[in-house]
Amino acid sequence: MQPTSHEPLANVVEHLVAMTEQVAIMIAEATASLMAADLQRAEATVSADKAVNHAQDEADETIIGLMTRASTYEGDMRSLVAALRITTDLERMGDLASHIAKVARRRYPDRAVPDDLVDTFAQLGSNCRTIAEKTGLMLDTRDLALCDEIFADDQHINELHRSLFYEVLSHDWSGTVEQAVDLTLLGRYYERFGDHAVLIAGHLRYLVTGTYVRAGAAPQR
Amino acid sequence: MQPTSHEPLANVVEHLVAMTEQVAIMIAEATASLMAADLQRAEATVSADKAVNHAQDEADETIIGLMTRASTYEGDMRSLVAALRITTDLERMGDLASHIAKVARRRYPDRAVPDDLVDTFAQLGSNCRTIAEKTGLMLDTRDLALCDEIFADDQHINELHRSLFYEVLSHDWSGTVEQAVDLTLLGRYYERFGDHAVLIAGHLRYLVTGTYVRAGAAPQR
Repeated sequence: MQPTSHEPLANVVEHLVAMTEQVAIMIAEATASLMAADLQRAEATVSADKAVNHAQDEADETIIGLMTRASTYEGDMRSLVAALRITTDLERMGDLASHIAKVARRRYPDRAVPDDLVDTFAQLGSNCRTIAEKTGLMLDTRDLALCDEIFADDQHINELHRSLFYEVLSHDWSGTVEQAVDLTLLGRYYERFGDHAVLIAGHLRYLVTGTYVRAGAAPQR
Repeated sequence: MQPTSHEPLANVVEHLVAMTEQVAIMIAEATASLMAADLQRAEATVSADKAVNHAQDEADETIIGLMTRASTYEGDMRSLVAALRITTDLERMGDLASHIAKVARRRYPDRAVPDDLVDTFAQLGSNCRTIAEKTGLMLDTRDLALCDEIFADDQHINELHRSLFYEVLSHDWSGTVEQAVDLTLLGRYYERFGDHAVLIAGHLRYLVTGTYVRAGAAPQR
């Protein structure tokens, strides 16, 4: 996303990188609010989603403005289309972080995550924050090695997600149906961060190599 | 999406309407496979998702081709951007139908939905099929009254979704944790059909009125 010859795209990349930073912070804050049953932090995360939506609207206006310039080349147009898709994925990641915070808020003053699953969710939160940060780094550097890292990180998130289900469905699990519902939704939200990061990496790889691989579209749960 | 003066867009609308038909059928078939624990139908629905992905790729190529033509006007460009967003939503609806069929497949020869929730899922399936069909009709006619219908239909889907949770979380519910997990995921998949239909309606309304309303982005579960 950083062609040396076309300055206006650099502005778009800046918008997108800023969005990845917003989203990475939201994921970390949503996870913190969940772990500590921290109502204030949950509310702040829900509010932060508006800023991500606003950032998307601004980025999209910039992108569409560039698209309508008569001098847009086909290569640029494909970059701009990829950029539009990336803002959609990032906006959705903001929604997901907000959904996580809403689960924390709904169960307050209780904690939605039982003791024996705190570690799993800490890992999910940390991995999802990292994967969001890596999409920002990849936007900045166009380093394809990061694409492979993101695909591997997504697999790891999927494994954590599966281990969560094994735990909840195991015979010794002593939680309530309400907890099972919360944990199912939470697991799904975290797992979707990985899918969106993979989609973003795919859009970026397409720009660099011209080859599109449909990935991350079929989570098992 | 049917401006009289710009023929090429008519071709794009045809692609999109065909996708809405594919998706509506997938929703109906996924629901049928779930209700009857019909493995063959579930497998067919999972396979049908490939055709939706292929249809998206074809539609996107057509759209991007039109975007790169020097004669694309700003009005057309916004229509084309909306069309790209619509293919993304429709592709995702195909994924969701496939996820529903995978739940049916995973529980075969058992049925994932217990007797007392068959009626709720029949209604969810029927409403989601209808809302997908209405996006096709709206693409075809640009009739804004359909936009309001789609918003209302989405609210009804959200109510069915909430009623499902009340049922699962009620004190008399006698199902297993595994069933609770399945029903939580299934409810979420159906609820997302409504959200995507609302997003599509929003993209279309924007094209007709020039006003964009961010809707359907914040389901409570």
